[in-house]
This record gives sequence, structure tokens and C-alpha cells, in this order.
Amino acid sequence: MTAPGGDTQHGIRRRNLARVLRTVAAQGPLSRPAVAARIGLTRAGVAPLADALLRAGLLVEAGRAATGGRGRPGGELAVSDRGPAGIGAEIGVDHLAVCAVDLRGRVRARVAADAANRHSAPGPVLRRLSALLAEVTGRIAAEGLRPAGLAVAVPGLVARGATTVVHAPNLGWRSVDLAPELAGATAPADGSPALPLTVENEANLGALAELRLGGDDGRPAPPPDFVHVSAEIGIGAAVVVDGRLLRGARGFAGELGHVPVRPEGPACDCGGRGCLEQYAGEEAVLRAVGLTPAQAAAHPGPGARLGLLARRAAEGDPAVVRALHEAGTALGIALAGAVNLLDPRAVVLGGALAGLAPWVLPSLERELALRTAVAADPERAGGPAVTVSRLGADGPLLGAAHAALQAVLDDPLRSWAPAHSPRNGIR
Amino acid sequence: MTAPGGDTQHGIRRRNLARVLRTVAAQGPLSRPAVAARIGLTRAGVAPLADALLRAGLLVEAGRAATGGRGRPGGELAVSDRGPAGIGAEIGVDHLAVCAVDLRGRVRARVAADAANRHSAPGPVLRRLSALLAEVTGRIAAEGLRPAGLAVAVPGLVARGATTVVHAPNLGWRSVDLAPELAGATAPADGSPALPLTVENEANLGALAELRLGGDDGRPAPPPDFVHVSAEIGIGAAVVVDGRLLRGARGFAGELGHVPVRPEGPACDCGGRGCLEQYAGEEAVLRAVGLTPAQAAAHPGPGARLGLLARRAAEGDPAVVRALHEAGTALGIALAGAVNLLDPRAVVLGGALAGLAPWVLPSLERELALRTAVAADPERAGGPAVTVSRLGADGPLLGAAHAALQAVLDDPLRSWAPAHSPRNGIR
Repeated sequence: MTAPGGDTQHGIRRRNLARVLRTVAAQGPLSRPAVAARIGLTRAGVAPLADALLRAGLLVEAGRAATGGRGRPGGELAVSDRGPAGIGAEIGVDHLAVCAVDLRGRVRARVAADAANRHSAPGPVLRRLSALLAEVTGRIAAEGLRPAGLAVAVPGLVARGATTVVHAPNLGWRSVDLAPELAGATAPADGSPALPLTVENEANLGALAELRLGGDDGRPAPPPDFVHVSAEIGIGAAVVVDGRLLRGARGFAGELGHVPVRPEGPACDCGGRGCLEQYAGEEAVLRAVGLTPAQAAAHPGPGARLGLLARRAAEGDPAVVRALHEAGTALGIALAGAVNLLDPRAVVLGGALAGLAPWVLPSLERELALRTAVAADPERAGGPAVTVSRLGADGPLLGAAHAALQAVLDDPLRSWAPAHSPRNGIR
Repeated sequence: MTAPGGDTQHGIRRRNLARVLRTVAAQGPLSRPAVAARIGLTRAGVAPLADALLRAGLLVEAGRAATGGRGRPGGELAVSDRGPAGIGAEIGVDHLAVCAVDLRGRVRARVAADAANRHSAPGPVLRRLSALLAEVTGRIAAEGLRPAGLAVAVPGLVARGATTVVHAPNLGWRSVDLAPELAGATAPADGSPALPLTVENEANLGALAELRLGGDDGRPAPPPDFVHVSAEIGIGAAVVVDGRLLRGARGFAGELGHVPVRPEGPACDCGGRGCLEQYAGEEAVLRAVGLTPAQAAAHPGPGARLGLLARRAAEGDPAVVRALHEAGTALGIALAGAVNLLDPRAVVLGGALAGLAPWVLPSLERELALRTAVAADPERAGGPAVTVSRLGADGPLLGAAHAALQAVLDDPLRSWAPAHSPRNGIR
């Protein structure tokens, strides 16, 4: 029952600093009284917190840049567009990508590369990723940003709270600790301390992106309880409960791809039979369409094969339409199990699945409605809404970059020691 | 990011009162310095909190009873065996039960009755339950206990945070609010305020009992992440994450009985096909064994039919052994989905299933191991442990009684205004 950080003066100050920073990041520019009103503190309580965040370079006086460095007295507070950046990286089966996000949530740099990572040893993949990381950190340094943390999205199981990829079947990795391999990228040569490193399943990071960014552009944000389904080669999911990821005891929650759909169905690499991936995974769909592995290999790169399927489906190719209908049926059966167990407010189709939604959704929704009717309540809405992610395949990378900023938002002054005080004008 | 109750003086005091009461309840009798050490406060900080709890009659000086009402100076604190009692009630398909638990966790009164509630209108069932409630509150009043709250376990879906049974298919109830029907039992004629009423799915309360009582008698308590499966006529489950129930957006989480096992299987009352209940529910097993509904009806009462199955299985009846093996297979398939999604530390078989474990477990564990192997990690333990509840069919009722004490444990002084100050010696 202890509050996070305890009820000490220090813990309370830390939480209040975080609340000021988050409030300005989400709703700024804001005057100090406006911040105070939003977080339920007095203006006198907010002033020293704001001063500390200004000194650390996390906040700026909104008018300052325009007036030659001097803020108006009582001017508005904004988050800095210099200072900390969250670095997100993605190791896909077919590609690598890195991006940097500032405290305002804007993407400030982004690089991507096709890469044949399937069954490639970790060493070369991570060296290539390190080169992309160096490119991004170099670019943002020129804009006055410095990495506050690095989060890496991987298509596999990650040990909870650790940096070890326990099992990524489509990469062929088992028990790979990314920390030593990325040491060069996280401990820069200039002697600054090593970056905090987070390694996380890609569907989990996609769900975090959905939670933070899904509501941009005037769309409603997803509710704080949803199942986020994401597919590329494999099928993964993330479960969000009360706005937080459900990670599971070992960190392995969300393995929707291995939920049994037809228990006597085809054997799966996992050792089971009739898993969802055997019906709705990329390989299963390509097989159902009649594309040989060699034909499929002629379409490498992130989402290329799923893009091909979407094009053919849009042209009305009956085999493709049928295969996607079957995939939707299998997804609906597996999701019916998830919905019966979790009672989420929504199911969000993310990742590459988002692009196939027009052909996958009808059969998916039909199965879901049929198999979750026990919970349908005549007086209320029935089962969960099924929605399609606007972020699509960008979700995991953006989610990673935002996750990398999390420590700064949770504990601003501890996690962010500016290398040079902006007050000295040294950048 | 605000702490529960906020960082106000009042909120902090409330949390500290709760911590003192819980610590003494769980580990007492304890001296004040021992309490202080366990919760990280100074002795000077604990003393006024202990005094307030003593004045409210929630704590007693452990030596007081033995020394004619005067505690030793610096004596030990214990929770009172008078004062508040949690009243738990259970509406089963075949029975009604009520019990009362004191702050020490001891059952102080218990009554049960066979009842043919299947498809019975709510009114008569709840009037009979009210009579049992009156019997229990009468009994405990004679021992100086007074009800602090009432929690009712029902075999169905309950709206989150409400007292309405949304759908209990095996009772035939839809949208039944228990509050008005139980008004007589919760608002006593003596003018004291109405009791707080909680209505909750029986599997959820069984899981709470497991969490609080599963470790008694020297057995290890279940880990804070588990799936609790419970069966009587239907099959329900509860999902516990980090020691808390996952309730779902509407409160309907845990519907394991309607997870699809064989999607083209027999039609289910819920509108789906091949749901777990069609393979492992009581009726399905009785049908597989060849018992007609008339034969089955000759064994009424709580657990009587499942007791019959257990006896026949123990005698080696091949049809029963085979039927329970098949039920275990279906449970294993449905639980494999749950484990892939949730990655719990354990699966606990509770309710009447506990008594059938010897015949259900082998096939259940086989399916589970086969279908969750993707997460098996050579360096760590594989999937979750499967354990059998010691509480069995008693779980929901005991869990209800403990849940009814929850408000007192969370906010002792607010939730518990003693009718008579024990200082006056009036009981």
C-alpha cells in the first residue's frame, strides 16, 4: 500500500516534478497558474518545481526563444525541443530502424534499412543497428538533443525487466543479451554515462505507441483496456489493462500467435498444433494463396509481402480474398478466447495487419461477436470495439522511442543531468 | 501518478493506519517497535496510530484479556476478536451458504442449505439467503462481533463495481440488482447504517481466498500472478496479476468456460460453438459418462454429482476415467490459450475441480506443456506450475467474507465506527 517512492518529502517532490513535466509536455505551453490548477497544487508550490525543471533544461519559457532568451515574467512554460531525446530502435525480420523523439513527442530523426535478419547471427545484426544508432544520435546532436535512453523492439520474448531476448523464433535467436552487443551505442566514447537500455517485445511497444499517440489528429485515443494485435512474420499481441502493459510473470504475456485455434490442426514450430500462426501468420497466408517460398522471397523488405497481398486483394484476386477471410476467422477465434478472458474495451489491429484490415475484419468480427455473446448485455454495449491502428507498422518503433523517454518523465531530475547548463549558453 | 488518497496529510495517515492494522492482523501479536520496524515508521510514529486503532476497537492489547482488561505497558498489539466481521454469502446453483470471518481471519459462524436455485426467480432465492444472513449475524452478535460488510458470490457475470448480476446462465438470471432484494439484510432494523454490499463472480472470490488463505497450514501461498479455474455447473476463472484481480472493462473477465476449444464443436447456450464448457462443464461430463439428466438429478446438493464422479473414477469406472481425461484435455487446451496470453506463474484448480484433480490433471498438464513450449526457456523454469486448491469448493464463500472486510483493512477509521466504545465497557 506504499505510494510509489514512498511518502517521503523526496518521493512527493519527485512525483510533483513528474506531474509538472508531463502536464506541460501534454498540454503546454501553459502558465504556472494553469499548471497548478491542472495538478491540484498551489502556484507557490509549482514555482520552485518549474524553476528546477527550467534549470535542468527540460522546460523553457515559451516566449524565450522569440525574445532573445528572456522569458516574459509570468510567461508560459513549454517543454524544451532541445535536451533529452528518446531513441527507439526496431529489429524486424526484414529490416532495421532507429528514430529519435523529443519531449514534445516529435520525431526528430529517423533512419531505416532493409536487412535480411532472418536466422542471422545477433552480432552482425546488432553491429549494423549500432551504426544506424550512431547516425541518429549524430543527427540529433546537431540540433541540441542528447539521448536519454534507448529502447529496442524485437519480434520475440524478452525477459521481464532485462535486456535479454529469450526467444525470437523468426530471427532464430535464443538467450541473446543485447546490452554487451550494443555497449558501443549506449556508452558513447566521450565518457558520458551509458544510456539506459530497454529491450521489449514489438507488440508491447506498438501498444504503448497506441496508448500515447493513438489519439492524435483529433481521433479518440484508445481506451485504457485493450488488446493490441500485431502481425508481421509472426503474430503477437499486447494486453493493456488500466493503461498499463500486462507483461506476465516472466515478461512473456501476449503470445496470441500460439493460442490454439484448432487443437488438432497443423503442427507449429512451437511444439503445439493448430496455433493461430498456422492460420493467420504471414507464411500460412502466403501458402494458402499458393505463393511458393521462392516467389515470396522475391518481395523482401518490411511489409513488402503483406503489401503484395493487400494489392492482390484490392484487385479482387479470389485466392487472396479467401485466404485473408480464413485468417480473419482464425484471428476472431483466438481473440474470442482473449476477450472472454480479459474483457477489454477494444481490440486494436496494429502492425502490418492494419493494412489488411478491409479483408480480415469482416470474418474476424463475425467470429468475435458469435463467441463472446455470453457477455453481451442488452442494457449496455456488447463486446469490445474492433479498431484499426493509424500507426500501423510504425507503432513499435515510435513506441520504443517514447518508452526510452519514460525514465525522464517519471523522475525528471534524477534521469536527466544536462551535460551543459543551458544557462551558460554552451551547447 | 498521484498516490492512492493523494499526498495529503490525511491520505498518508489513512495509509499508515491501514498498514498498522494489516501488519498486526497478518503477523500479530506484535509490540509497537516490531510494528514500526516492519512498516518503516518510527515508534513515535506508530504510537498514535495504534492508539487510534485501539480506541476504535480494531486492535487490543494482547495481554489485556488475561490481566483483567489492563494491558502491560509496552505490551503487544493484536487484532480484536470482537469488532468487525466480514459476512460472505454464496448463491450456488444447488445451495446457499453464509459465513462470518473476524479480523483474525477465523470463521466465527457458518450456515449452508441445499437449494434448487436453478432457474429459480431471484426473489425467493434472495429471501432465503436473507434468512441465512440473519441467522449468522444473530450468532456473531452474541460474540461481540458486528458486520462490517457483506459480499455475495454468484455464478455469473457481475457489472464492475456494481451490485447487479448481469447474466447468470445457470441460475437463469439477467440484470438482477441484489441491493434492493437484500435491503433487509444490509440495513438492520436497529437503525444502524446499511452494510456495504459487494457482489462478485464466484471464481473471482475463490481467487481472492486463494491469495489470502492459500498459504495457511505451512503451505506456500500462491504467487501473485495466477489463473484460478473453478468449476461447478459452469466453468469460471479468475485472473490475478501482481496480487490483484483483473476484472476487465465491464467486470466480465475470466470467462474461461466460453473460450473456444474446438471452433466447429457442439453449439453452446452462449451462442458460440465448441466452448470449454461443452467439454469440461458438469453436464458435458455427466453426458459423456452416460448419466441421464434424471439420474443426475437424483444427486442434488453442492458438489454431489461431482462427488459421484470422483467416487466412480476412484473405483476405476472406465467411462468416468475417460470422460475426466477428455475434460482435462479440453481444460488444457483452453488454459494453453490463457497461459500464452497472460504468462501467469501458476494455474490453480479450485472449486469442485479440486476434487477431480487426480483424473483431470494428467491430460490437462500434457496439453498445457505441449502448447506453451514456445515460452519454455532452457535456462529458467518452463511454463506455469499447476496446483490444486486446498480450499476447493469453500474458496468463494471464504473469499467473499474476506472481501467484505476489505474496506476496514483499507481505511480502518472511516469504515468502522464502533456502535459502542469498548472503553465504556458496553458490549
